Amino acid sequence: MAGISLNEDPNHYLMSRRHNDLTAEELMEWVDQYADTQVNELILNVNAMRAGYDSGVWESFWEGYDPEGGSDQPFFAAVAPEARERQRQWVHRGWQLHRDGLDRYAIWIDRCRERGISPWVTMRMNDVHSVDNEGDPMHSTFWQQNPQFRRAPYKFDDWVDKAFDYGRKEVRDYHFRLIEEAAERYDFDGLELDWMRFGFHFRPGFEEEGIAILTEFTADVRKLLDSWEAKRGHRIKLSARVPSRPQTARGLGMDAVEWARRGLIDMLVITPFWATIETDMPVELWKQLLHGTDVELAAGLEVLVRAYPESALRQMNTLETVRGAASSLLSRGADRIYLFNYMDSDTAMADLENYPALLREAGSLETMSGKTRRHIVTYSDTWAPGEASGALLPAACGPGRYRSFRLHAGPKPDGGDVFVLLGAAPASEGTAGAGRENATRGTADRENAGADATGFAPGAGDKGSAGFGDVLLNGHACVYEGVADIAKPRPEGPVHRFRVPAGAAHAGFNLIEARPDAPQTIIWVELAVEFR
Amino acid sequence: MAGISLNEDPNHYLMSRRHNDLTAEELMEWVDQYADTQVNELILNVNAMRAGYDSGVWESFWEGYDPEGGSDQPFFAAVAPEARERQRQWVHRGWQLHRDGLDRYAIWIDRCRERGISPWVTMRMNDVHSVDNEGDPMHSTFWQQNPQFRRAPYKFDDWVDKAFDYGRKEVRDYHFRLIEEAAERYDFDGLELDWMRFGFHFRPGFEEEGIAILTEFTADVRKLLDSWEAKRGHRIKLSARVPSRPQTARGLGMDAVEWARRGLIDMLVITPFWATIETDMPVELWKQLLHGTDVELAAGLEVLVRAYPESALRQMNTLETVRGAASSLLSRGADRIYLFNYMDSDTAMADLENYPALLREAGSLETMSGKTRRHIVTYSDTWAPGEASGALLPAACGPGRYRSFRLHAGPKPDGGDVFVLLGAAPASEGTAGAGRENATRGTADRENAGADATGFAPGAGDKGSAGFGDVLLNGHACVYEGVADIAKPRPEGPVHRFRVPAGAAHAGFNLIEARPDAPQTIIWVELAVEFR
Repeated sequence: MAGISLNEDPNHYLMSRRHNDLTAEELMEWVDQYADTQVNELILNVNAMRAGYDSGVWESFWEGYDPEGGSDQPFFAAVAPEARERQRQWVHRGWQLHRDGLDRYAIWIDRCRERGISPWVTMRMNDVHSVDNEGDPMHSTFWQQNPQFRRAPYKFDDWVDKAFDYGRKEVRDYHFRLIEEAAERYDFDGLELDWMRFGFHFRPGFEEEGIAILTEFTADVRKLLDSWEAKRGHRIKLSARVPSRPQTARGLGMDAVEWARRGLIDMLVITPFWATIETDMPVELWKQLLHGTDVELAAGLEVLVRAYPESALRQMNTLETVRGAASSLLSRGADRIYLFNYMDSDTAMADLENYPALLREAGSLETMSGKTRRHIVTYSDTWAPGEASGALLPAACGPGRYRSFRLHAGPKPDGGDVFVLLGAAPASEGTAGAGRENATRGTADRENAGADATGFAPGAGDKGSAGFGDVLLNGHACVYEGVADIAKPRPEGPVHRFRVPAGAAHAGFNLIEARPDAPQTIIWVELAVEFR
Repeated sequence: MAGISLNEDPNHYLMSRRHNDLTAEELMEWVDQYADTQVNELILNVNAMRAGYDSGVWESFWEGYDPEGGSDQPFFAAVAPEARERQRQWVHRGWQLHRDGLDRYAIWIDRCRERGISPWVTMRMNDVHSVDNEGDPMHSTFWQQNPQFRRAPYKFDDWVDKAFDYGRKEVRDYHFRLIEEAAERYDFDGLELDWMRFGFHFRPGFEEEGIAILTEFTADVRKLLDSWEAKRGHRIKLSARVPSRPQTARGLGMDAVEWARRGLIDMLVITPFWATIETDMPVELWKQLLHGTDVELAAGLEVLVRAYPESALRQMNTLETVRGAASSLLSRGADRIYLFNYMDSDTAMADLENYPALLREAGSLETMSGKTRRHIVTYSDTWAPGEASGALLPAACGPGRYRSFRLHAGPKPDGGDVFVLLGAAPASEGTAGAGRENATRGTADRENAGADATGFAPGAGDKGSAGFGDVLLNGHACVYEGVADIAKPRPEGPVHRFRVPAGAAHAGFNLIEARPDAPQTIIWVELAVEFR
């Protein structure tokens, strides 16, 4: 079985348990929910810009916090008044654990071993949450006082413009010190360098120069772990989180293939950044690149799911959409499913009642077999500076020409009912005006279908297929079944369902083709495999 | 020295020499122009849908042609009347060579050896030129009479919809027979399988299933060549032309990495299809994939150069733009520069007077060093069915935010003057209306600059930079120098020149950033390195 690696972020636990003092027992209970599941590794995140433990080399989240000072104390002065008390509460929880001598990471690591889970520590290598607010108490004074160490001091279009420049030795040393300390303080099975929080580590235009720098940094960390292996008496693995596509990873200074070939890493996590789960990561390509090494490839799943970059929706994945992504990625050769932001509350899947099932299914094709799964077209949310980016959706379709969408559906969906689900943008002035006849038909359709106040309508054109015209899967005609009432995640507006004829769907990549009768902008493409 | 491979298509020679009977001497002279240049291999193309020689297994271009019948004979009935005589002339030239017992490929191969050039033969594996005209005499009767062997019989949006489906054994056997015949007939140093004419070989949705099929086909060809090596007494190499990016190649059924690792191929040509030279092919990624094999990687250059897919321009490359692409691709690790459609006339570079220089320069960084070169942003013109495609241009820029463009500039441009060249689309109603103040300033600029009848203007906004605002190279501010009068290729409308400060440009990837003052759609991005 491939299994699951699960990432726990540095303050979710404090935030979700902020209202009551915590005990060692409660800390252990957090681990216990992952015991006897498919979770092989708990990947415990010890930092953002500050440390989640009482560090001697970095500030902790509660350094400077006065537990008696309330939410109006100077520590929170830069925080918006309405957000202060909530922030104070989780900072206080970190402070309370420290006061009570409870090192949550040490306790979690011990408990993991007792319950048969491999404990890992992960470090965010360049976290820039909330850097629009320079005075936020989440930030380190090192970052605040050294704007000259930032990667793009001449602009601020995005948080990552204020990220550290790893081209600076001071920056590398600053981060290496926390790694040294964590390695001394915690007896973990493995250390992950999380280069995807937030993914941009060099001055714009200096990413290629950065390749050697990050490789050398990784080698230094490997050397450090080597020295600890003797003292701990066990192997200490090293992993890295990098962008989903090798050319983008390299374009951001991360030559993960070189790390693997030099024997520096044991596991590699490929992942989008945050905006959406990436359902079509090139696993086969990575496996070819890692061929001849012992490196395990973990497919990283984020919790959000969006169909296209401009989408205003912020929907979370569900058990069914994770099954879709995980069964695809595992069948493409991934050695592990890695869950990021799939925590036990707050930042979590939409149908949290299915969390126990997720932990017991998503790590194996066998346990997902015969269960309903949803394969959704999403996109890659991370690109190197100046790299050409692309996304399948939204897809503006001219009438009478086929438009194609590729979806990898994992194993052959034997015994399931297979459906193509499509959504289109509401007809705009531009599309409705493409032909008087079509516009008229569109109006009639809208009336028939009783379009709601959002303005979304089944679309202009052939009533027999809601304007999508011929819809094919692998060349086989699919049959329109009307508007489908599907659970979230779902697109803006109605979803139209087309039944795929038996046997037409196959393992691996399937191709959906649609030939709208009138101009359409498709914004949702899904292949659903339903078992009843 | 890396050197050059040069592809000669199946009818360019006949077309360009169509007016007079040809002799063996003239055939040899064609080879001689490539002797004592950097051309290592002449890659002689023997077919499209018909063979360029008197084949016993396929029709030749002149089979069915009556040399006495003029252009109104039945053979040309399906050709547009105004095109008949020209087509008759080149078909006649093929017929004449055959009549006179001149097998051009045999003569060329012998002459190549005499002049120190390695002779190769290349086969187009799925040529679909002009298939909108089913009766064109270029087509084979096998193709005409077997529509059931085509990959997408249900549609015709593009020529490739009518390409053969290699999922059919009949199709594979039909092509293999020509390979067998060519291997018996010609004593070549190497055979190239040109999977990029036209790149689509399977039913839509069956590309992944095709991977094993093409790998087996390649293995069969390798076995055939093995058997001929003993008879010829020398090594016979095998090569393949595939799309520029590994995941797209695989998405089209071409697992070139597997071919390399199984020892089936000796050379791999990565290339765009046709619409433009691709200046940013991921050479490093391919080299990592080919690591541990002996396969040489050739970077394929097409002759057209376009900045974005929708561009209506059809400009050819020049010595300077080839220097840009070739010096970049060689410095990224390509083992060879492969020229496709760079022939000695007709289908040729724009400045054909520089052809001799091209053949003596483009295969080596040394010979291009210290010479003016142009690095132009282009795009990838080939994507697998349903794959997300992307292009850097056109780039619609909102005001006040940086937009980034990556260009790999090859070796550090020491001693040269470096310029960023930018072009923008003419202000449309949409962009001009983005703000009254900007619109007014835009009008003033247009008057000052004396915009020509095309409607192109320097752009709205800051007069000091033609509306492009701050223009940076690797974070260094560049200085606006006005509209540049550059040679073709150039964009629609004016080109604006920005001087890069000394030392700001470096080897490898350089990043251009622009922050327009008003909405702009950038359609041309170039880094020019000029030596005087």
